[in-house]
Amino acid sequence: MPAGAALSGGVAGPDALRPLLDAVLAGLADGAALRGGPLPAGGPAGVAALVAAALGDREHRATSATGEPAEPSGQGHPGEALADDGNHPARGRAGEPAVPDDVLRRLTALLTRGSADPADPACAAHLHCPPLALAVAADLAVSALNPSQDSWDQAPAATELETALVRDLAALVGYDPATAAGVITSGGTESNLMGLMLSRDHALGRAGGHATELGGLPRDLSPRIFASEAAHFSVQRAAAVLGLGERAVTAVPVDRDLRMDPAALDVLLKEAVGRGETPVAVVATAGTTDTGGIDPLPQLADIAERYGVWLHVDAAYGGGALLSDRLAPLLAGVERADSLSLDWHKLGWQPAPAGVFLVRRAETYAPLARRAVYLNPADDEEAGYPSLLGLSLRTTRRPDAFKIAATLAALGRTGLGRLVDTCHDLAHHAAATVRAHPLLELHTTPVLTTAVFRYRPASGLPADADRVNAALRRRLLTEGRAVVGRTELPGRGPGRVRLKLTLLNPHTTPAQVDALLATVVAAGQAEERDEAERAGEPEGVLEGVPA
Amino acid sequence: MPAGAALSGGVAGPDALRPLLDAVLAGLADGAALRGGPLPAGGPAGVAALVAAALGDREHRATSATGEPAEPSGQGHPGEALADDGNHPARGRAGEPAVPDDVLRRLTALLTRGSADPADPACAAHLHCPPLALAVAADLAVSALNPSQDSWDQAPAATELETALVRDLAALVGYDPATAAGVITSGGTESNLMGLMLSRDHALGRAGGHATELGGLPRDLSPRIFASEAAHFSVQRAAAVLGLGERAVTAVPVDRDLRMDPAALDVLLKEAVGRGETPVAVVATAGTTDTGGIDPLPQLADIAERYGVWLHVDAAYGGGALLSDRLAPLLAGVERADSLSLDWHKLGWQPAPAGVFLVRRAETYAPLARRAVYLNPADDEEAGYPSLLGLSLRTTRRPDAFKIAATLAALGRTGLGRLVDTCHDLAHHAAATVRAHPLLELHTTPVLTTAVFRYRPASGLPADADRVNAALRRRLLTEGRAVVGRTELPGRGPGRVRLKLTLLNPHTTPAQVDALLATVVAAGQAEERDEAERAGEPEGVLEGVPA
Repeated sequence: MPAGAALSGGVAGPDALRPLLDAVLAGLADGAALRGGPLPAGGPAGVAALVAAALGDREHRATSATGEPAEPSGQGHPGEALADDGNHPARGRAGEPAVPDDVLRRLTALLTRGSADPADPACAAHLHCPPLALAVAADLAVSALNPSQDSWDQAPAATELETALVRDLAALVGYDPATAAGVITSGGTESNLMGLMLSRDHALGRAGGHATELGGLPRDLSPRIFASEAAHFSVQRAAAVLGLGERAVTAVPVDRDLRMDPAALDVLLKEAVGRGETPVAVVATAGTTDTGGIDPLPQLADIAERYGVWLHVDAAYGGGALLSDRLAPLLAGVERADSLSLDWHKLGWQPAPAGVFLVRRAETYAPLARRAVYLNPADDEEAGYPSLLGLSLRTTRRPDAFKIAATLAALGRTGLGRLVDTCHDLAHHAAATVRAHPLLELHTTPVLTTAVFRYRPASGLPADADRVNAALRRRLLTEGRAVVGRTELPGRGPGRVRLKLTLLNPHTTPAQVDALLATVVAAGQAEERDEAERAGEPEGVLEGVPA
Repeated sequence: MPAGAALSGGVAGPDALRPLLDAVLAGLADGAALRGGPLPAGGPAGVAALVAAALGDREHRATSATGEPAEPSGQGHPGEALADDGNHPARGRAGEPAVPDDVLRRLTALLTRGSADPADPACAAHLHCPPLALAVAADLAVSALNPSQDSWDQAPAATELETALVRDLAALVGYDPATAAGVITSGGTESNLMGLMLSRDHALGRAGGHATELGGLPRDLSPRIFASEAAHFSVQRAAAVLGLGERAVTAVPVDRDLRMDPAALDVLLKEAVGRGETPVAVVATAGTTDTGGIDPLPQLADIAERYGVWLHVDAAYGGGALLSDRLAPLLAGVERADSLSLDWHKLGWQPAPAGVFLVRRAETYAPLARRAVYLNPADDEEAGYPSLLGLSLRTTRRPDAFKIAATLAALGRTGLGRLVDTCHDLAHHAAATVRAHPLLELHTTPVLTTAVFRYRPASGLPADADRVNAALRRRLLTEGRAVVGRTELPGRGPGRVRLKLTLLNPHTTPAQVDALLATVVAAGQAEERDEAERAGEPEGVLEGVPA
């Protein structure tokens, strides 16, 4: 048996894992110390060089760690390992796991050194949370045991645990757990795809077709999905995947907080019906990626009900508000959704993925029902074997429910709610600092845990603001000083670029937020100085010369 | 900050993780010892009771571990944690991570005790591999750092590492890495969906439509997908998701080894074209789930080329043969596929998921291209920031590439090839034992690492064989003695139920395989005895009485 072939499972698993986990912890520590900030400096070229150097360098150190002379080719490079013989005896003797440990420590240090680490207070760009150590540790148990949720006999206890968790999450959103259903997903994109698929088949079923079981989409149908201008792009992507086409998505106007205008939705629905089109779904967003804006759920539910249209709520971000007594009222009405998306790898502090898809009525899940003779034969079902196969678009499926369940068991809703509130407070603190700063401009009051703003360049011209803000963010990345978000407001023309702090680290202090904003201002000023210098350089003489 | 809120990242991460990982290792050891076999005895009801008892019981032990009196309600239950206040001060003091450790150890022990552990030689039902400890440890680094592949600034080094790995994997299958493209996926089901989506848009693009970008599927098209009768059910599922409908999939007949008949494919394609239908894709299977049968790839590639149809190869299982010098020739022709699926969580010993999707020509990826202003704005791309967003159907995406790369670095292709060969040998050993046993019947010679067979009941009647084989497998599950596969051969009528050993544990010995088969025979005999007894019991007097 080659070195490194020890398994994680069984009675011997823990002892096989222990030295390897020590190597990973050492690599995490090495890499964090080497990085010394929120991300590596040097930008894409610098990171590419770092990775290339580490891979090329590995051979020498790996072989020297075994006391053997260096191999003629880079045995430690994954790619060269594929091309050449990656298992030369010199790389480790049976029973001596020195080489796997060494490879792990070095590759982990590389990954760590080259990470944008959301646990650093200056890494605050995306809905990219710093995970809880306890959730990460729970995830290790899942990797080690490798259960798969596509059949009971690959995941007996995990099947029970996911079922219990889904029931609890259904109750959290206000569904009746006895009649709701759901599954853990790879994230909001998959959850949105599932919601829109079920809505498609629901609408087509009523229109006489049934895309899933029968011969595809009916020929005489013009399906329409209504989502706000600020809805996540995965709605368009889902429409494309589902064969409806991206153009099936009608963008409904939003207000300044990026919330859907219900009156506009009403008009657009009326017009679509008047043209003989088939409304398939209204997608409400509870927590837009940028402003955290929450569409007016009760009004949208009324409208969807009036037109008999499926209501899907994308609460991938805003669902976290349900954990907080202070913020939960923002999601009133979510319990009227036919389906919804939650992401515990956003406001839930789980390592990705930890998506959740729920439907209010289990029977609407029917188009996904699936019988596979090798996974859930009818006689097994009669004998009482539960199957989650028909709840997911995937087949092999890691029980990501476990880390969520462990987190809830340790922290409870209240513990998690405190983390949500802390991040909400940080966003308001950031907004106050931005408001008070003459060189910064706030877009709108934070709703959840983001602050959207921009640096004001001296000229005040919209195109200058766009260019300088985009450039200052890249400057911070290249210098390894900060990871701040960059986005664009809906609409057309210049002046829409904004910066964003997505505050998901509850250990970040208000002073660290202020320091981060000061860093942004300094980068904006440096960018303007550099622009002015470049304008004075020789290529400036070409101005006015026809191309 | 509530207890349990420590983060896994940053300089403090390793120290926060260490005691929690110790708790998980202890829980894995506790659970494996308590289980004492391949799975818990008692069947679904037994496992449900185990989980319920552990969740109900946890409160008492959790609180007693802190030295505090028991709480009035079960604070340790994830669900109750949501419903009640799960963060009572009694559960842990700031700086004392005793409670999170305790919760983790107990929940891990529960998951472990309730697992079907593929590291046990008697757990051999599914393409559900026992993962390598080193891959599991590598996965921990990913959980701890939480990179996400949807933008460079969430995963600088991980973006580079995945890009390098995909290039290496393209070379492994015989693609030109300079012109191929690909991505790491959640498994064969997602990879098959991607291949069929690209084939759909390729076919529709030529037919004048373009489902992804434009208004959905053209109205005048009858799309057809050709896959063998033994192809994975995810092909039908993909057709349903994509709006083509399950009926768009034409099942091509197979031989006894479950390999597609190329002559039949040719006829079916000719007929479809004659009817004015649009062939969208031929799906070849390289390694059917049951027999490991590999469709005749060179002939199918010739036919697909002749009709100008996209060839997708589902090598989720058989792709592992590429790691073995002995078995790689079975996959000759795979390099002619337009797209293909590989799963390193099958013959690659990774914890799930570790799927791979590859296309031969990067330009065929165009329908998935995606621009999100907050993830990959055009000016970032111009500034040299790479983006993997348009390569995946997901948005948030954990770098599952890392564990694969670490495994390759430590074991190399040759080391992994030895594991493949060992499992292949075990399957042949199982087949020889089955052939030699009067009460067992082999279906066909193993191709990869499965042996498909059945127990012969005394009557020899097909319906009896089906019932007894299905029942003996459940008997083994209920007794906690073995997890063997159960499937049905393609076709209609009784006599198609088969048992299956899927041998993915390279540490299993031939003697353990023989012991497992002896256990199967004993269970078959016990089942027949019990049936005979039941037939002699009082309800037997009802025989012949009209219902």
